[in-house]
Amino acid sequence: MELGSPGAAPGGVSVSAVLPAGGSGERLGGATPKQFCAVQGRPLVSYAVRAMERISWISDVIVVVSPENTETMKTIIEKYGHKKVTVVKGGITRHRSIFNGLKVFAENEFSSHLLQKPEVVIIHDAVRPFVEEDIVAKVVMAAKEHGAAGAIRPLVSTVIASAADGCLDHSLERARYRASEMPQAFLFDTIYEAYQQCTDYDLDYGTECLHLVLKYCKTNAKLVEGTADLWKVTYKRDLYAADSIIKDNLSQQVCVITNVKETLAQVGFLLPESLKSQIKVEAISQSLSKNDSHLQNIISGQCYNFVCVNDKRCAIQEIQELVDMLEKSNIPLLYPVVLISLKHQLDYCIWTKGKINITEEIGSTEVHLDISENNSFSIGMEDLTMIKKFARETKKKNILVYGLLIQCKDPLLLQETVNSAAALIMALIKDRNPELIGQLLVA
Amino acid sequence: MELGSPGAAPGGVSVSAVLPAGGSGERLGGATPKQFCAVQGRPLVSYAVRAMERISWISDVIVVVSPENTETMKTIIEKYGHKKVTVVKGGITRHRSIFNGLKVFAENEFSSHLLQKPEVVIIHDAVRPFVEEDIVAKVVMAAKEHGAAGAIRPLVSTVIASAADGCLDHSLERARYRASEMPQAFLFDTIYEAYQQCTDYDLDYGTECLHLVLKYCKTNAKLVEGTADLWKVTYKRDLYAADSIIKDNLSQQVCVITNVKETLAQVGFLLPESLKSQIKVEAISQSLSKNDSHLQNIISGQCYNFVCVNDKRCAIQEIQELVDMLEKSNIPLLYPVVLISLKHQLDYCIWTKGKINITEEIGSTEVHLDISENNSFSIGMEDLTMIKKFARETKKKNILVYGLLIQCKDPLLLQETVNSAAALIMALIKDRNPELIGQLLVA
Repeated sequence: MELGSPGAAPGGVSVSAVLPAGGSGERLGGATPKQFCAVQGRPLVSYAVRAMERISWISDVIVVVSPENTETMKTIIEKYGHKKVTVVKGGITRHRSIFNGLKVFAENEFSSHLLQKPEVVIIHDAVRPFVEEDIVAKVVMAAKEHGAAGAIRPLVSTVIASAADGCLDHSLERARYRASEMPQAFLFDTIYEAYQQCTDYDLDYGTECLHLVLKYCKTNAKLVEGTADLWKVTYKRDLYAADSIIKDNLSQQVCVITNVKETLAQVGFLLPESLKSQIKVEAISQSLSKNDSHLQNIISGQCYNFVCVNDKRCAIQEIQELVDMLEKSNIPLLYPVVLISLKHQLDYCIWTKGKINITEEIGSTEVHLDISENNSFSIGMEDLTMIKKFARETKKKNILVYGLLIQCKDPLLLQETVNSAAALIMALIKDRNPELIGQLLVA
Repeated sequence: MELGSPGAAPGGVSVSAVLPAGGSGERLGGATPKQFCAVQGRPLVSYAVRAMERISWISDVIVVVSPENTETMKTIIEKYGHKKVTVVKGGITRHRSIFNGLKVFAENEFSSHLLQKPEVVIIHDAVRPFVEEDIVAKVVMAAKEHGAAGAIRPLVSTVIASAADGCLDHSLERARYRASEMPQAFLFDTIYEAYQQCTDYDLDYGTECLHLVLKYCKTNAKLVEGTADLWKVTYKRDLYAADSIIKDNLSQQVCVITNVKETLAQVGFLLPESLKSQIKVEAISQSLSKNDSHLQNIISGQCYNFVCVNDKRCAIQEIQELVDMLEKSNIPLLYPVVLISLKHQLDYCIWTKGKINITEEIGSTEVHLDISENNSFSIGMEDLTMIKKFARETKKKNILVYGLLIQCKDPLLLQETVNSAAALIMALIKDRNPELIGQLLVA
């Protein structure tokens, strides 16, 4: 997730990007413009900024926002640690905003220092969060060769023209037409010339940059087949879809850290096996302190899900170490991290019937685990209160802590119980529900 | 949710509907055709069928599926209690499938008995789950007057034509064009004539019914502005969106049933108040048996969320009564119902310090609630096992049972604790997560 060192751009050209983010989001039906709507706690515009900024060969990212949102945008940039970004005040229409963004490279009007003019400029939308480097590179290469290029997608519905009486005039043959999507890219001088030459009517009523360079620079843009994930967040349902896609993307890998005594090691072995059918699993079986670099590698490889398998003696202390490592890594800065503290109580292993009280020191808090006389476990409220308190603190760091208890009296049922724990772990990871933090689930 | 008695159709015409459901769902990227993908446990096609079937003035709903899916479709119809439906085998293209669907009203080829030919036939998609009666009526009225009509939506992206070299030829002025959506409606004789006259090329490569009636019957369809929810489930993200929209729709109302002693009535009062800021609340404060008709009205008014506030003495028994009522009502047939069993332990009210064991008889299962000696509560594993077992049983009836415990020692903190319970209730309702059933959350 770290920004790469400046890499070679496709075709060796210098490249920067302009992101118009001035829209009002009327179609979304809410008060907040859609680019500022939170998805997994982070404004949509931050995803698009990140998608551009992480591409090593993109030098500058210009975000154009309406004047009243300048401060909001600056706060977002600071909060999510965005680099490379310059915020520019937009105009009253999309074209005027893009033009303002381009001026930063050509005039002194919009920034204290003139930014280095790129050979190719990418134009992308603040509300298209999922653009991959691959398609951006293709569009940039095509722009270098043709002067302009844009991503396209097949039409989902037939397009029709209506007559003045509101009746069908004709329908277009779907195969001949495409939807024009983003990103687009242009030789900077070409698109800048088009904007300088175009009319006020173009600036006020047009929306399509490819059209401007065709009309004013006789440049026929190269069309590049884009992937399905380029779609634009337009309606509320698109926000829902974006949220689900991000949660899906974050649910690809889990790291299971087991630090238990040998008599209890079964769960540490069985659990990763059970999870493997559903998710990529990295299993670490030594104690944390002995294995910092391995875990560090997993964290910096962008793992967003952790299960700590504890016996009675460790628990929160070990989790706190992981929380500290995650915090240092900046991993929770962009996406919420799920951290599940799994305890197991396998009474057929080590305990005898009778009342036992195991107390452990965690900071200044005491944890009680009671085994009541009827040979069933019980969870003390003190435990629950402590987990909750801890989870509330770590949530401020964008780390979602949940508790999970495996309780199994019968060795023959252990596999089944572990499978049920794996199902709960997958549910917690996929859901990332911030309201359920600090709860103790039981498998 | 009950099917209405046959109502008067708009304009007094007889109306039936054809739903092509033969698509392979290539764009979705899965093995299951999208119309059979489950959303909240139910295949998408069932939502579209239901949307048509619940409109009282629609007589028959013809679902056209590919031959290999006929049995699947018949099973769906039986499982979800669909009425009015006839399953017809489709052809190899969309147009051929629709034609087969229409033939049911005109030829003996496809069904054992010829269905009554409607004056107006609606054509809708199996993968557009959210169509409202209002827009269907508008389209039917327009079809009666103009011979054909279809819902349209503004274009989301600019539409462009590409030249043979893969470069931009021209872009369309977005304001002049519309996306053609569904439902569409036709005078039956008009659309049937169009299908009878059209060429094999039309049947194999065309997709737009409005185009056929224009070409072969000189009928210019009336275009009707549709609502945003008419969109077609095309990609995986659309399935995510559909799932979220359905969960949203199911989270509009909660019924809080309080059956507690006076000393504990505070929660029964405070909780609905706290919930009211987030959801419509129906509060019932008497015991269930005394209030059957009121509760029955709430259930048949399509309430999908229930909170039972219990003191120590009732619990599962009361919930079982509600489960029975819900089962009888058929409400869980189409959508999962959330049922939260809320217990409160307010030890400042009635309990003194010391070890207490309250045992209650529930069927043959005993529940223990222990108050341990340090004046904190604990949850026995026996309780948890019992809730889980019960929840697993009710899940088979599409009723999702969760446990929630309010524990509060300090009267001054009661409001805060109740607010936290309300937040958990909202999270459970909005999520409807089947993996978390039988868990006991603590506020």
